Amino acid sequence: MAGTRSTGRRERLRAETTAEIKRTALELMGGGGPDAITLRAIAREMGMTANAIYGYFAARDDLVTALIEDVYTALADAVDAAWAASAQGTPAVRIQAWAHAFRGWALANPEGFRLIYGDPVPGYRAPDGGPAPDAARRVCVGIAALADAAWTAAQPAHGGDEFDWDDFDPGLLGKVRPAFPALPPAGVALALRIWGHLHGLVALEVYGHLSAQTLAPDKLFRAELTQLVRTLGLA
Amino acid sequence: MAGTRSTGRRERLRAETTAEIKRTALELMGGGGPDAITLRAIAREMGMTANAIYGYFAARDDLVTALIEDVYTALADAVDAAWAASAQGTPAVRIQAWAHAFRGWALANPEGFRLIYGDPVPGYRAPDGGPAPDAARRVCVGIAALADAAWTAAQPAHGGDEFDWDDFDPGLLGKVRPAFPALPPAGVALALRIWGHLHGLVALEVYGHLSAQTLAPDKLFRAELTQLVRTLGLA
Repeated sequence: MAGTRSTGRRERLRAETTAEIKRTALELMGGGGPDAITLRAIAREMGMTANAIYGYFAARDDLVTALIEDVYTALADAVDAAWAASAQGTPAVRIQAWAHAFRGWALANPEGFRLIYGDPVPGYRAPDGGPAPDAARRVCVGIAALADAAWTAAQPAHGGDEFDWDDFDPGLLGKVRPAFPALPPAGVALALRIWGHLHGLVALEVYGHLSAQTLAPDKLFRAELTQLVRTLGLA
Repeated sequence: MAGTRSTGRRERLRAETTAEIKRTALELMGGGGPDAITLRAIAREMGMTANAIYGYFAARDDLVTALIEDVYTALADAVDAAWAASAQGTPAVRIQAWAHAFRGWALANPEGFRLIYGDPVPGYRAPDGGPAPDAARRVCVGIAALADAAWTAAQPAHGGDEFDWDDFDPGLLGKVRPAFPALPPAGVALALRIWGHLHGLVALEVYGHLSAQTLAPDKLFRAELTQLVRTLGLA
């Protein structure tokens, strides 16, 4: 009994320390850019020895991979939750809910957003298949779901024949086609375009460029979403 | 005579070395992120002494300011040139010419794009008024020109009354209102939204996220521009 309890306690402490290492890494990145993520600096910040931290992450790249996995998974959770919560809504309502969740997550997690969409950590080598393949797949499929939900209405304006399957990465298609068999190549292109469209204003805001221009970024984003769903034939 | 020639030669050499310092800084940033821009590293790379480089830039932040000025000015030159060259075209043609110039410049100058739109150089303090106020003003006014050119056609869909002058930075309005007196608050919002819209796909491409998804980023960008001008009532 006592042994089990102490194992449980050790595991809990280990999980807490792991979480604190990750938190500290993102804080260091917030102040000094992705280059500031080093095991030595984190150990110093947390009052650990360098040796002790290697017991948690054998190398800096292992920590970076774990961070990207965490961050990407949190983003996928946030947008998937918004999509599921709006399941009774029209496609226009659901797409706007997804987009607000995307922006809300990015603004609440600017270091995370920069870690997955901004400058790579210098010298970082991702494992084969990418640092966060499952979460990346979830976000991809989630964006394709937006295009799929809009497709019937969007098809007249967005269903040109300029795209074909060869235009896309086979890995992307391997995720998207089984999930949305009715979506043609132009629909997959629409998914990527919606992604880029939403990414723009959010990235400008996360990187502080919008605040120099407007005091009403919320209003700006809402106006852009109104236009997006109109462009998709949904309003 | 000999004295004048040698002054000319000294000035030319100084200008060449200054340009090489800037080029080296951007190369270092390309490999190691914005944090890699240090006068010491540049001197090492160029085989200069640290003292010699201080004769060109007294501090790292002076170099960063000069770099941002150069880069921003080059961007303003590129998009202004495309706008001027298409002066005889319809607004739809001109907006697409501007957008292609923006993307073309970004893809040809990824370090420059990241320097002005990505992670800031850690610890960098810009001079009062920003690092490149003239070039920033030119780019702002250039984007407002897109909205102004589209406004007559765009007004029915984009001319809602949800924006007012208080929503915008007075500095932005000080640049835009004198240049485009007919543009109402919703038109200024449209300018910022067009900026964000175009920024998204370009940023994803510059940061390497699009190449993991599509082999035809050109086609994707063209399709998005077709939709943009359609949304503006121009096609």
